[in-house]
Amino acid sequence: MNDLLARLRDLIGPAHVLSGADAAAYGREWTGHYHWTPLAVLRPATAAEVSAILRLAHETGTPVVPVGGNTGLNGGTFAEGALMLSLARLNRVRDINPSARTVVAEAGVVLEALHGIAAEHGLAFPLTFGAKGSAMVGGFLSTNAGGSNVIRYGSARALCLGLEVVLADGRVLNLLTQLHKDNTGYDLRDLIIGAEGTLGIITAAVLRLLPAPVAYGTALLGVESLGVALDLLNRVQAATGGAVEAFEYMPAHYMARLARLRPELACLFPPQPVNILLEIATTRTGDDPSALLEEVLGAALEAGQVAEAVIATSEAQRRKLWQMRESAAEITFTTPDLVDCDVAFPLDRLEAFLHRMTARLATIDPGAEELVIAHLGDGNIHYTAYPTRTDPALNDTIRAAVAEEAVALGGTFSAEHGVGLSKRATMAAHKDPVALDVMRAIKAALDPKGILNPGKTIP
Amino acid sequence: MNDLLARLRDLIGPAHVLSGADAAAYGREWTGHYHWTPLAVLRPATAAEVSAILRLAHETGTPVVPVGGNTGLNGGTFAEGALMLSLARLNRVRDINPSARTVVAEAGVVLEALHGIAAEHGLAFPLTFGAKGSAMVGGFLSTNAGGSNVIRYGSARALCLGLEVVLADGRVLNLLTQLHKDNTGYDLRDLIIGAEGTLGIITAAVLRLLPAPVAYGTALLGVESLGVALDLLNRVQAATGGAVEAFEYMPAHYMARLARLRPELACLFPPQPVNILLEIATTRTGDDPSALLEEVLGAALEAGQVAEAVIATSEAQRRKLWQMRESAAEITFTTPDLVDCDVAFPLDRLEAFLHRMTARLATIDPGAEELVIAHLGDGNIHYTAYPTRTDPALNDTIRAAVAEEAVALGGTFSAEHGVGLSKRATMAAHKDPVALDVMRAIKAALDPKGILNPGKTIP
Repeated sequence: MNDLLARLRDLIGPAHVLSGADAAAYGREWTGHYHWTPLAVLRPATAAEVSAILRLAHETGTPVVPVGGNTGLNGGTFAEGALMLSLARLNRVRDINPSARTVVAEAGVVLEALHGIAAEHGLAFPLTFGAKGSAMVGGFLSTNAGGSNVIRYGSARALCLGLEVVLADGRVLNLLTQLHKDNTGYDLRDLIIGAEGTLGIITAAVLRLLPAPVAYGTALLGVESLGVALDLLNRVQAATGGAVEAFEYMPAHYMARLARLRPELACLFPPQPVNILLEIATTRTGDDPSALLEEVLGAALEAGQVAEAVIATSEAQRRKLWQMRESAAEITFTTPDLVDCDVAFPLDRLEAFLHRMTARLATIDPGAEELVIAHLGDGNIHYTAYPTRTDPALNDTIRAAVAEEAVALGGTFSAEHGVGLSKRATMAAHKDPVALDVMRAIKAALDPKGILNPGKTIP
Repeated sequence: MNDLLARLRDLIGPAHVLSGADAAAYGREWTGHYHWTPLAVLRPATAAEVSAILRLAHETGTPVVPVGGNTGLNGGTFAEGALMLSLARLNRVRDINPSARTVVAEAGVVLEALHGIAAEHGLAFPLTFGAKGSAMVGGFLSTNAGGSNVIRYGSARALCLGLEVVLADGRVLNLLTQLHKDNTGYDLRDLIIGAEGTLGIITAAVLRLLPAPVAYGTALLGVESLGVALDLLNRVQAATGGAVEAFEYMPAHYMARLARLRPELACLFPPQPVNILLEIATTRTGDDPSALLEEVLGAALEAGQVAEAVIATSEAQRRKLWQMRESAAEITFTTPDLVDCDVAFPLDRLEAFLHRMTARLATIDPGAEELVIAHLGDGNIHYTAYPTRTDPALNDTIRAAVAEEAVALGGTFSAEHGVGLSKRATMAAHKDPVALDVMRAIKAALDPKGILNPGKTIP
């Protein structure tokens, strides 16, 4: 082991091979759910260094766990006894081509930095979520992250044209195409995206940029039911030609928790059963999305369909409405003793799921509390349960119940947060067994020694 | 062999196992480029029958080549001595859910039939290309087909949510999710899409439907150069908020060939160096795309940027403009002695490619003719050369030159038609060798006996 660390120091410099207390600082998921002691933490600066590390790890059969911004929720970077490979120093923007609307960014570029770089060129990189100030390119691609704008722009996968990947044996797989059309054999890009670092380590990506909206219309609405909200979504989509960028659901209990923990972000009206952050945007100069919202929402208010509505009249107001939504992780992960789930459904099944879970949780653990927040337009619910006692077996029971109800309603037990460690048992219980066999065959073909993020994703 | 056919007859009924002259009728690509003698042609009606066939083929090590509408261009269904598996009888629409905007269609459903089914529900399945009356779901997904609306809606891949796939050993892989977000392990769906039947046989798919446009604006334009055309594209995109559905390039020599072979479709004005079929569409009631086109094109005419323009004033006129474009395959494949290529570029490299190829073709085969048609908005050129003599080695030289120029300009040698047989040598010459190794490893893992569409895609 000392020999291994010495060789690693030779490869990337002693300052970038952390051990002991320096390494131990990396041994914790930010939620506090997972703790571990890594063998060492490596901080390479280039794809060539990542390649050299992997060659050595492959030769010695040493497990390697990649880590970006450490914003995951499922134990995907658990690395007991493994080398943790931080991509944070691969943080260069290698190239930006505004006319082709592409940017080549290394794995350690932070999402919010990408937003800024795109904006400098009058363009947008539309992926966004609460952890944007920490999450990195390699991580949001390895987990196929979603967020609040998926309804319009798709998940991370839809925004990636090309990849550079270091394979388990250190070879560099060059898929760095800038093209929108490129049918040259198997789609290895999409195989690596979402594989959570188990098939290769992403070192750089070609990402799509889009025309930046020139104007937004942003509103907070209160309505009485999910059915009314979804009907309203359809109406706004029709009236705007599909311009909805976000349609985020915050129930009354979310607003109550927000008011308690972040009083400055309390709801701007008496919280209704269903509160929605709605944003539309246009790239067409002259359009007035706020006026359009006023018109559609005004009619809905008069018809009694919408109970409350506030339309942002300044960028500061818009930012505040977004903070109400983006504080979700902060007000959810207040204790490690919770069960956080990430399920998705056909839109007409959401209400049934919520009713069933409330009833079922009450029988599993009377007194347990629920917290729900949802990317409603995507049918994606982040469902969190706070059990009445610290009991890992109870947590497992709740997690299994959520997955069971999700699958029974035609939904999925993993929408956008990935599988990691926490959903491996659910994968075993609910994923098509033939699909699992195919995944295992692919894993064995690409990582025969099983050194890449071992024990994750596939049960 | 007779024993094998007898067992196949037992599995799917003697009427659906074609041999002799009945089978020989399937032994030809429609272009006439490829001819073969299949061992037999199988016409199963269900995924279960496909599964039974594959189990038997796997047991006996018999090669199986899937075929849909036989509209391919690269020898992808070449099946000398192999079982051809026609998916034409798997032609049921299993389910349609207009509110979720999804349809579950079997592999043998014809693209144009899908258009009709979507239209019945006020929705659209936007993938479209000249062969829509024959091409089938299984084929357009297995090749990740493109076509004329990719600029707005993406290729086939972007329109598919889920798949049912029969693997090489007959197991059925169920990936039939209806969800837009589903991060449960590796993205096997996208691995199968575009794999040209070499990793599994698609038997059904969940496809996305979209709101049908309520109005179109369609125009034929003549301008002096590609640069002017691309500038105009940007202007129309900006003015319409990205509503361009098609931006198709037909050079003067295309118009001349069209006038000769389909005189009723001759250009409506004196052909210019660059003639463009432009279509925009809206899903927003009240928008008037034709008026918007008139405004933008009127200004461009006055500014001298556009030399000629005709805006369709009826659906019949719109259809006629489209027929000019959709007759491309018919007026291209008039002889088997041609070299058809399918290349794509960053938009600013298209003109350089065309200049270089014209010069290079003149040195390779003085007197050879060129035919160009392009999905200009995607940077995708269908480049065809007509050599002066029948000489397979000459064709290979031209094909290699096209690929070389494409790659040298940052483009790809295969944009949307796939690899099949005809581009295997190009794959060997230009695809990243590590990527080829990874593809071979995956192929070996999923089809260890190599029975699925052998000899295709991977060199």
